[in-house]
Amino acid sequence: MAPLDDTRLADLVALYEDLHRHPELGFQETRTAAEAARRLTAYGYDVTTGIGVTGVTGVLRNGPGPVVLLRADMDALPVTEHSGLAYASRTPGRMHACGHDVHVTCLLGAAELLAAARDRWSGTLVVLFQPAEEVGNGARAMLDDGLYSKGLVPVPDVVLAQHVAPFGAGLIAYCPGACMAAADSLEITFHGTGGHGSRPETTVDPILMAASFVQRVQSVVAREVAPREQAVVSVGSFHAGDSANVIPDQAVVRLSVRSFDETVRTRVLAAVDRIARAEATASGADRAPETKILDSFPVTVNDTRTLRQVNAEFTQLFGEQRLFAYDPAAGSEDAGLLATAAEAPLYYWWLGGWDPDEFRTAFAAGRLAQDIPSNHSPHFVPVVRPTLTMGVQALTAAALNRLAAPAR
Amino acid sequence: MAPLDDTRLADLVALYEDLHRHPELGFQETRTAAEAARRLTAYGYDVTTGIGVTGVTGVLRNGPGPVVLLRADMDALPVTEHSGLAYASRTPGRMHACGHDVHVTCLLGAAELLAAARDRWSGTLVVLFQPAEEVGNGARAMLDDGLYSKGLVPVPDVVLAQHVAPFGAGLIAYCPGACMAAADSLEITFHGTGGHGSRPETTVDPILMAASFVQRVQSVVAREVAPREQAVVSVGSFHAGDSANVIPDQAVVRLSVRSFDETVRTRVLAAVDRIARAEATASGADRAPETKILDSFPVTVNDTRTLRQVNAEFTQLFGEQRLFAYDPAAGSEDAGLLATAAEAPLYYWWLGGWDPDEFRTAFAAGRLAQDIPSNHSPHFVPVVRPTLTMGVQALTAAALNRLAAPAR
Amino acid sequence: MAPLDDTRLADLVALYEDLHRHPELGFQETRTAAEAARRLTAYGYDVTTGIGVTGVTGVLRNGPGPVVLLRADMDALPVTEHSGLAYASRTPGRMHACGHDVHVTCLLGAAELLAAARDRWSGTLVVLFQPAEEVGNGARAMLDDGLYSKGLVPVPDVVLAQHVAPFGAGLIAYCPGACMAAADSLEITFHGTGGHGSRPETTVDPILMAASFVQRVQSVVAREVAPREQAVVSVGSFHAGDSANVIPDQAVVRLSVRSFDETVRTRVLAAVDRIARAEATASGADRAPETKILDSFPVTVNDTRTLRQVNAEFTQLFGEQRLFAYDPAAGSEDAGLLATAAEAPLYYWWLGGWDPDEFRTAFAAGRLAQDIPSNHSPHFVPVVRPTLTMGVQALTAAALNRLAAPAR
Amino acid sequence: MAPLDDTRLADLVALYEDLHRHPELGFQETRTAAEAARRLTAYGYDVTTGIGVTGVTGVLRNGPGPVVLLRADMDALPVTEHSGLAYASRTPGRMHACGHDVHVTCLLGAAELLAAARDRWSGTLVVLFQPAEEVGNGARAMLDDGLYSKGLVPVPDVVLAQHVAPFGAGLIAYCPGACMAAADSLEITFHGTGGHGSRPETTVDPILMAASFVQRVQSVVAREVAPREQAVVSVGSFHAGDSANVIPDQAVVRLSVRSFDETVRTRVLAAVDRIARAEATASGADRAPETKILDSFPVTVNDTRTLRQVNAEFTQLFGEQRLFAYDPAAGSEDAGLLATAAEAPLYYWWLGGWDPDEFRTAFAAGRLAQDIPSNHSPHFVPVVRPTLTMGVQALTAAALNRLAAPAR
Repeated sequence: MAPLDDTRLADLVALYEDLHRHPELGFQETRTAAEAARRLTAYGYDVTTGIGVTGVTGVLRNGPGPVVLLRADMDALPVTEHSGLAYASRTPGRMHACGHDVHVTCLLGAAELLAAARDRWSGTLVVLFQPAEEVGNGARAMLDDGLYSKGLVPVPDVVLAQHVAPFGAGLIAYCPGACMAAADSLEITFHGTGGHGSRPETTVDPILMAASFVQRVQSVVAREVAPREQAVVSVGSFHAGDSANVIPDQAVVRLSVRSFDETVRTRVLAAVDRIARAEATASGADRAPETKILDSFPVTVNDTRTLRQVNAEFTQLFGEQRLFAYDPAAGSEDAGLLATAAEAPLYYWWLGGWDPDEFRTAFAAGRLAQDIPSNHSPHFVPVVRPTLTMGVQALTAAALNRLAAPAR
Repeated sequence: MAPLDDTRLADLVALYEDLHRHPELGFQETRTAAEAARRLTAYGYDVTTGIGVTGVTGVLRNGPGPVVLLRADMDALPVTEHSGLAYASRTPGRMHACGHDVHVTCLLGAAELLAAARDRWSGTLVVLFQPAEEVGNGARAMLDDGLYSKGLVPVPDVVLAQHVAPFGAGLIAYCPGACMAAADSLEITFHGTGGHGSRPETTVDPILMAASFVQRVQSVVAREVAPREQAVVSVGSFHAGDSANVIPDQAVVRLSVRSFDETVRTRVLAAVDRIARAEATASGADRAPETKILDSFPVTVNDTRTLRQVNAEFTQLFGEQRLFAYDPAAGSEDAGLLATAAEAPLYYWWLGGWDPDEFRTAFAAGRLAQDIPSNHSPHFVPVVRPTLTMGVQALTAAALNRLAAPAR
Repeated sequence: MAPLDDTRLADLVALYEDLHRHPELGFQETRTAAEAARRLTAYGYDVTTGIGVTGVTGVLRNGPGPVVLLRADMDALPVTEHSGLAYASRTPGRMHACGHDVHVTCLLGAAELLAAARDRWSGTLVVLFQPAEEVGNGARAMLDDGLYSKGLVPVPDVVLAQHVAPFGAGLIAYCPGACMAAADSLEITFHGTGGHGSRPETTVDPILMAASFVQRVQSVVAREVAPREQAVVSVGSFHAGDSANVIPDQAVVRLSVRSFDETVRTRVLAAVDRIARAEATASGADRAPETKILDSFPVTVNDTRTLRQVNAEFTQLFGEQRLFAYDPAAGSEDAGLLATAAEAPLYYWWLGGWDPDEFRTAFAAGRLAQDIPSNHSPHFVPVVRPTLTMGVQALTAAALNRLAAPAR
Repeated sequence: MAPLDDTRLADLVALYEDLHRHPELGFQETRTAAEAARRLTAYGYDVTTGIGVTGVTGVLRNGPGPVVLLRADMDALPVTEHSGLAYASRTPGRMHACGHDVHVTCLLGAAELLAAARDRWSGTLVVLFQPAEEVGNGARAMLDDGLYSKGLVPVPDVVLAQHVAPFGAGLIAYCPGACMAAADSLEITFHGTGGHGSRPETTVDPILMAASFVQRVQSVVAREVAPREQAVVSVGSFHAGDSANVIPDQAVVRLSVRSFDETVRTRVLAAVDRIARAEATASGADRAPETKILDSFPVTVNDTRTLRQVNAEFTQLFGEQRLFAYDPAAGSEDAGLLATAAEAPLYYWWLGGWDPDEFRTAFAAGRLAQDIPSNHSPHFVPVVRPTLTMGVQALTAAALNRLAAPAR
């Protein structure tokens, strides 16, 4: 197939640096989306734009065979870059600090290679550029906009995605089964009835109500989740009242729930809601608490069979020593929604983005936390060429592995 | 009027010692009731027995005028007497340790005097011997049995009662307004779902449920009762489970509520119930907790006007130095039900039952708690003659004060 | 004695309107203090200024006899006046909404009358203008500055003060014993160790710590205060954290404690502190919580004997129908410190400041809360002439009652 | 080597039935111990008895090579047998319901075979019969009695043990690493100061103290244990007080802690203790709570290398289909103490004890829980011959695998 030659790599490096210079927040990725659409069209894909506000898809129908969907996310973060690089962000307070620029660049690179090599495979290729992964809404927005239901793209038989991470470039890390946690952030407003602190009997005290909730909600993990189910419920903020002397009307609590299994997640969220309501009842509140979902990520579950098949391809191509197994991460991701909505298997792998020597040195010195910036850090900028090279090759190889062989 | 002469007093002393020897628990006062009925009949009263199981009434209609009800309670306590007296209880584990034998004796003495002196007053006299005051059910049982509603006695215009207490015999103590607390004892059974301690997720933990109730119920007094309203909620027992390792099916909590005002009482009991239910809901219990009322006493409220009028009579008869004001007591009493059911005023006073010198010596030495047994003590036996003398005179004088003068 | 004639009253009305126009917050009462000092000097008092920043005293030594201290507070409130009066506040966001301008005016009026009538009494008169009553620091600041300890004024034998309130002008209300609550406002900072919400095991959660405190502190009133002792503990604010997902480093709680007895107050404050520390320990915090006292008022206790003696004077002067008894108020006041520091009795009475007809009409219609602005309201402006007249006369009469008769 | 021929098997069956008929509770296994000692002596072992009350060891020194310790536990349970078997327990309320009779029989069978085959191996064989496994004290008692420290047996290089379980006889189940939980049962007595329910201010309420502990201790798992660490803290009993109306002096709580890692266990136990103490402090108790350890089992950790080596032997001998991997169990065991005290690796496997067809049928029907009694059930009686046959062979094979080959 068409190799990732120097010309192509130079073009991708230029693309990457341009994207890095121009980070865009979730649902505002208009410049990025336009570039993706322009290139996909040039490569011969049927392109649709504006799915879920700024999402872009390209479809390449190439004979009978499976529909393979490759996904990249496009949004940047509200972080001020401190990398000092020539191609650092030009927008203050915005940065591609999670490497989505790598994802977009690699997917466009793979899209070009796969289009150029269409005699090497049969089936349908869907490449998808998703908005707003950081706030957990982008994949959902594309689905709600009719991605599958209105046939904007054919429903995939498999979904493939990758994410750059702070380990040696050239390496791929994989985790079978549940590999990233579901994460739900909630805001609960407890309604009491305020009054003067000297006359509590005329009030319904929302601070006691919310404090009782905080204490009682500890029992969800302690009593309602089996040890092996591994959920976390953390209250991150609590705000109520202004003065020592006046009982306020309401208390607002924000909490996050992490879980690694959909039934556990459902059970925990139901328990949180049940306890919040019961605490309002216990306080004699007239009004039930209101719960707002701030963001919501599903569990990311890698299909073990797909993972094994694609890893076999990786092993053959890159060598066994380039792959290593990884424990489930506490972070969260919405790529899985594109697979579950299609009832298709997912394989989502980690792509090394760091200078291997630098990484090894830090690792040996036990200084990973200090010396290697992690995702969301203002210093998180992958080493460009080896990362892009491996990222394009991995996506291409994975897609070819899942597509059919060309009919002879 | 007919004086409480030596013969009459000797008879009353004999009656008292006999009653003291034969204490009977609530609703089992058959021997006491029979003696009361026998004597009332002999004195000329219309007697009804078996009201509220063992209650007895005697009615003496004596011309136009108010209906005055005098009340005594008959039941003894499950206490083993340690008085060492010749006339000590002959029934092991039973004792008149709260002086109800004094009440019965004095009321029979007054009934005889008032019957003998019927030319001195006009109106209707009702004397009532009530069962089961100690468990809070006796007055209620008589009312439920139709005391007023079925016309077993005429509805009184005033209710008068006295209680012997550990201060100098010959003295009367009074407290206007709310003089004794309402007291409600509840047993709440919280229903969970038991299971092995290593698998809490298969259970609904009733111990956490009940513990949360215990903690949350503190807020009733702290938040829902105004400082001046003075209520108390105390959990006195908590029982659940056998072993460290097995989560039980239920937890049983007993608590008592004291209050000095009917609306506060209602509010507090409702709050306790609301919190118990809410904690079951918070735990995800299938079944609401069950609340059993163990006993229930109303607030005892002395009518200030009646108190003042009767006290004027006492002052005239006994001298000013024999009366003293007393703070509301935390104890409870059901005499008030007989008044509230009749919408009649109540006056309930305390009758001194102790040797005055002994009391004064203990008081002066600051040894009241050590040297003077209080009600319910196995050593609580009043000094007989002075107590009975004052008790009979006080009841008689109070009744005469409330009855009309005879028509000339 | 010299009457409060029309000229004097006109002068006081002008003084009052001027003070009302120029409200000054606590410790900034420089204009008010200067006027007080100027007038006291003119009346023949020995004047000291700058005690406790802005406090002013005037001393008039007039032969043998008791030292009588009359006190007024000078500070205004951070309230925007909505009275629409010609003499309304000229400083936006500042208003004499608690009537301290009345207090200053009346005390200067009384100071003049008493100086003019020095042949009518013997003893030493101290008039004191105190800063910063509203924040509870002014009396304390004057004492700390050496008011008594450095002999800035002679130590008084009695302290007299009055406060204008929303009832009919011409009336005086009194409350023997504890008449205003002690009030302490606290801010407690709980120190945890923050971290990511998905890794609570690396943190010490300050929100759970403070929430547990809020719940546990309910037990202070429910368990550690007798019903008749009447304390209140209310948490008025709770602030911690920003996001759902990050456990913060600290939580800050503000609460107020009200009590009517110094030993209860001490016990409650100690219990609050004990529970705050224990909750930090329960959470495994490295660092104990920090408690900051935001403000602190003592119980205001009227000496019953002094009250009776002064009231006898009031009755004689104004007639019995001008005095009425009042229940203890939940509000707080620091005048009592000037008495307790001198081990002298205090009498602090309420002075009516409202149009009597208007008040009666509102009272009869059950519309007091709606129609009569209470202290701290932006509409709280007393009716001038009758209020000042009665205020000057009451102070003068009370002082004369407590001073000695002139030697003949 | 000497086979487990019919004669030997018949003897073991008789031994097993005799042991089953005569179950003995922990530290009372005198009859069982005597039989073990008698047989070991007959087989040529150096026997020591009375170690840790009733423990027995036999040592067979057979040339250079490793010291291999085989362990069986001897104690029965306080269960009434309902098996209806001819050889059912003859002691009411006592039963070998956990199969320790199987363990003793198999170990004696293996001891005989290995002694008879001493030309087939070189090294030292230690067979150990331990008391009181069920209450977690037996291994500890033998160690404390000087098992290794006083040289009662040579310190082993490896410890091997097996436990019969409700799956098909002929099968062996294994679990590498932590295979059984640590379990600690605690009883905490909270000391308050009792008093009448109407006067909580004179008490320190132990029910509120313990209830607060129950609620706060939920946070140990919710906040102080990482999701993957998998601990459980369950309160199984709570007892305090008798009546609704009297605040008792103390509250007694029993709880169990399960964990799969020694550092987690230490951390959780410290947190439980810290919270108990802090709650007593929060309540203002004079006296710290007292914690009694009811029983305590360590984590049972299989050495992965030893497990693999022995399993290779099993596979060769019995065939691959006879071994299967098993998840860590929530139950607990004290065999591991014998290994950790010797700093030796442990391999502890599960031995099938059920009729294979019966098991398969129940499994296929999803009726395992209903049809197959589990350990501690009054119906738990293994199928004798196949269980003993496999148990003797497994122990023998494992020992031979770990002993040295004989010198030629």
